[in-house]
Amino acid sequence: MNNDTICALATAPSGALGIIRISGPQAVQALSAICSACRDNSAKPLQANHTYYTHIKEGNTTIDEVIVTIYRAPHSYTGEDCVEISCHGSSYILNKVLELLVQNGCRMANPGEFTQRAFLNGKMDLSQAEAVADLIASRNKTTHQMAMNQLRGGISTELAQLRDQLLHLTTLLELELDFSDHEDLEFADRTELLSLTQKIDEHITHLAHTFETGQALKQGIPVAIVGKTNVGKSTLLNQLVGDNRAIVSDIHGTTRDTIEESIDINGVQFRFIDTAGLRTTEDKVEQIGIERTIQKINQARIIIWLLDQRPTPDEMDEMETLSKGKSSIYVHNKADLIDQEYFIPYVLPLSLISAKKGEGIERLKQRIYEEAKVAGLTNNSNEVIVANARHYDVLIRAHESIENVLDGLNQQLSGDLIAEDLRLVLSTLGEITGGTITSQETLNNIFSHFCVGK
Amino acid sequence: MNNDTICALATAPSGALGIIRISGPQAVQALSAICSACRDNSAKPLQANHTYYTHIKEGNTTIDEVIVTIYRAPHSYTGEDCVEISCHGSSYILNKVLELLVQNGCRMANPGEFTQRAFLNGKMDLSQAEAVADLIASRNKTTHQMAMNQLRGGISTELAQLRDQLLHLTTLLELELDFSDHEDLEFADRTELLSLTQKIDEHITHLAHTFETGQALKQGIPVAIVGKTNVGKSTLLNQLVGDNRAIVSDIHGTTRDTIEESIDINGVQFRFIDTAGLRTTEDKVEQIGIERTIQKINQARIIIWLLDQRPTPDEMDEMETLSKGKSSIYVHNKADLIDQEYFIPYVLPLSLISAKKGEGIERLKQRIYEEAKVAGLTNNSNEVIVANARHYDVLIRAHESIENVLDGLNQQLSGDLIAEDLRLVLSTLGEITGGTITSQETLNNIFSHFCVGK
Repeated sequence: MNNDTICALATAPSGALGIIRISGPQAVQALSAICSACRDNSAKPLQANHTYYTHIKEGNTTIDEVIVTIYRAPHSYTGEDCVEISCHGSSYILNKVLELLVQNGCRMANPGEFTQRAFLNGKMDLSQAEAVADLIASRNKTTHQMAMNQLRGGISTELAQLRDQLLHLTTLLELELDFSDHEDLEFADRTELLSLTQKIDEHITHLAHTFETGQALKQGIPVAIVGKTNVGKSTLLNQLVGDNRAIVSDIHGTTRDTIEESIDINGVQFRFIDTAGLRTTEDKVEQIGIERTIQKINQARIIIWLLDQRPTPDEMDEMETLSKGKSSIYVHNKADLIDQEYFIPYVLPLSLISAKKGEGIERLKQRIYEEAKVAGLTNNSNEVIVANARHYDVLIRAHESIENVLDGLNQQLSGDLIAEDLRLVLSTLGEITGGTITSQETLNNIFSHFCVGK
Repeated sequence: MNNDTICALATAPSGALGIIRISGPQAVQALSAICSACRDNSAKPLQANHTYYTHIKEGNTTIDEVIVTIYRAPHSYTGEDCVEISCHGSSYILNKVLELLVQNGCRMANPGEFTQRAFLNGKMDLSQAEAVADLIASRNKTTHQMAMNQLRGGISTELAQLRDQLLHLTTLLELELDFSDHEDLEFADRTELLSLTQKIDEHITHLAHTFETGQALKQGIPVAIVGKTNVGKSTLLNQLVGDNRAIVSDIHGTTRDTIEESIDINGVQFRFIDTAGLRTTEDKVEQIGIERTIQKINQARIIIWLLDQRPTPDEMDEMETLSKGKSSIYVHNKADLIDQEYFIPYVLPLSLISAKKGEGIERLKQRIYEEAKVAGLTNNSNEVIVANARHYDVLIRAHESIENVLDGLNQQLSGDLIAEDLRLVLSTLGEITGGTITSQETLNNIFSHFCVGK
C-alpha cells in the first residue's frame, strides 16, 4: 500500500543513544547507501534480526559508529522492511543521518506513521494501534495496565463477542424472513430477538459507561478540596503533592483561581483541585473563583470537605447536597490546635489532620485511595475499560442504532428494515478496531496525535 | 575487574522508544529473570547479536513487549556481557524495568560507567573514552569532527609518535652512559640529544597551543560586538541570532549586562557577545557594564566594531589598541539612513549594514566566518586539536618536565638524572591515553562528567 520509505528519530533527543527508524520498500537500500559495512561487503548482504557494528559515512567522512539491525517484511513492527540505526545521541549526528537518509530516497515520517503502517498492514487492529500511544504516554500502574490490556486485545475481544451476537441476531432475523408467511411463528421469534437485542444493548451501554472511569483513571481521579476560606486548603494541597505549588498566606481569599496537581497513590493517579473558599464576598474576582469552585465540585469524583469547626446544620445540608453521587471525605484540620483526647467527632467518619504540621496526611491519602476503590475507580481487575474518546463516541452511536433495532422489533417492522439497522450497528462497532474505516483522512486524524517515530 | 552488573536508561526519557542497557557478568542472567522468552525456552539460550521479540514480566503481569539483544564478552561496547532492551518510551515502563533489573542483581550505573568499563577492559584508551562524551555533546560539524577525530585515535597517534621519540632519546642517553668514559664522545651525543629534545618540546608545545582554538571551537568562537551606545548593537545581535534575545529600546544604555548567543555559520559555532556601549556614564550599574565590555573584548577572538559615523582619530587609536592580536571587522550600521551611492568608506574594508532592516546581515556572517578561517579557527583539516582541559593540563606538565631535560642537557648533568626526567615526561603524557593513571578516584572524576547510560 505504501510505496514510499519513511524515517524518523524514535527516541527523545539528547540521550546517550538515539535510535533512527526506517520503514518501507527502500529501507535496506537507503541504509546501504550510507553505511560502510553494506557498501564494502556487497557480496554478503546483511541478515535480518542480526546486529551489525558499522560506520555511517557521508562521502569519506565518518558521521558515526553505529549498530544497525534489519527487519524483513512481514516480520517487523510495521510489516514492511525496517531498519533501526543505534547512533550516539548527538543532535548533529542524528540530524545528519536523517538528512542522508532523505537524500537517499526516504522521507521524514509523520506522527504515528510507523504504527499507522502496522495497522494498514494488518499487524494490529486500530484499537491496539491506539493502545501503543497510550502505553507510551502511561505514567503510572493504572494507565499502563489499561493500555497494555488494550494492546493485548482487551476491547477487541469484547467487540468480537458483540459481533458474534449481532451476526447470530441477523441469522435469526433471516430465519424469521424465511418463515414470514407463518404469522404465529414470527411472534415467538421476535420475543427471542428482543431479549437478545436487549442483552447486546446492555453490553454496549456497559462499555460506554466505563468511559467515565476510564477518563478519571487516564487524567487522574478528580478530587476537590472544599471548605471555608482560611481553613487550610492550600496548605493541605501542598502537603498532599509535596511542594509549594499553591500560594499560601494568612489573608482570607488568597486562592482565587483553581489550581490542579496530580499525585500517585498506590499506582492510581489523583488530580487534586484546590478551590477558592466558599464564603460570601464582595470581591468580584473572588466571586468568579467561588462559581468555579462549584463547577469543580460538579466535575470531582471525590470531595474532601475541609473543616476547622463544627458545621451548622445548614452547612451540613449544603455539603450533603453538593456531595450527591460523589464520595465525600470529612476532614478536620488544625488538629494541633485542639486537645485530641477530649475531641468529639461531629461527623462520622472524620479524619483528623494538621496540614501545617503534616500530621495525618499519609492516613488521609490511604483513605482517598479506599474511597476510589469503593467507587470502582481503581481498576485492579482485568475488566475492559474504555478510556478513548473515539471509542466512547462509537459506542454511543452503536447504542443509538441498536435502540432503533429495539424500536423496530417492538413496532413489528419488517425483518429487512431491522436487518439494515443491525448492519449499521455492526459497521459502527467496526470503527473501533478499524475494520470499517475507509477514509484516509479519519485515519490520519487518529494517528496525528501520536509522537513522531512511533 | 568488575564483578557487579550495572544497568541504566541509555536514551533520553519521553521518546517513542527507550533503550535500557545492562553490562556485567550477570547481565544475561538478570534479563532471563524478567523476560518470558528466556524463561520459557530455557533449553534454547538466546544467541548473541540477534534481536528477539519478547515480553518483560513482573510475575504474571506483562510490563512491556520489547526487543532484546545480547552481546557476549569481549564483543561488546564495554567488553563485558551486555544486554540492550528496546522498550516503549513510557516513564512507568522504563522505571519498572530498571526496578526489576535491580531486584535481580543489577545496580544502577553511575554516569559514564559503561564507557569507563570499556576503557578498563581495553576496548578504547582514555582519550577515546572522553571523545565518546564529546561526540554525544557535539552540536555542529566542527565539534563533531573534533570528537570523531579523537574517537578514531587522533591524539593517541600523535602521542604514540612522541612516545617513540622519547624512547629513542632514552636509548641514546643509555648509549651515552655506556660510553661515559670517553669524554669527547659525550659532547657529540649531547648535541644530537639536545636537538631531539627540542623537537619533542616543540611538538608538545604545538599541541598545547591548539587548546585555545579547541576551546573556541568547542564553546563557540567568541565574537564581541562593540560600539557606542545606541549604535544598534542589540539590534544587530538579534538579527544575527534570529530572535529577540536582547532587549532593544531607544534609551541610551539599555544593555547593561553582557548577553551571549550562539549561532552556526558554515558548521562552525560562533558565540556573540553583546556589550554595554562604550561611553562615559555616571550610572553605576552601567559603569560595571562598561568594565565587563572591556573584559569581554579581551576574551573575544573577533571584534565587530559597530559604527554609525566616522570615528575620531583618538577613537580609531583606541579601537586599534583594543583589537591587538584579534581579528577586527569594521561595520557601519544604519545604512538605510545614508545615501549609499555617495557614501565614502572611512575605514577599509568596511561592511555596510542596516541591522534594523536586516540588510547586509548574511554578507556580514560570511565575513565573520572568513575572519575565523584566516585566524585558523575553522579546523577544516584533520589536524589534531586539543579541546579537553585535562589533556591541556597534561601537555603543560609534560612541557615543564621536558624543559628540565633541556636544562639538564645544557648543564651537562649526568645521564641517569636526565633519564629520570624523561621517564616523568613519558608517564605524564601517558595520562592522556590513560595508560599511566592508576588512581580510581582520578578515573571516577573524569567519567563523572558523562551522562548516565553511556
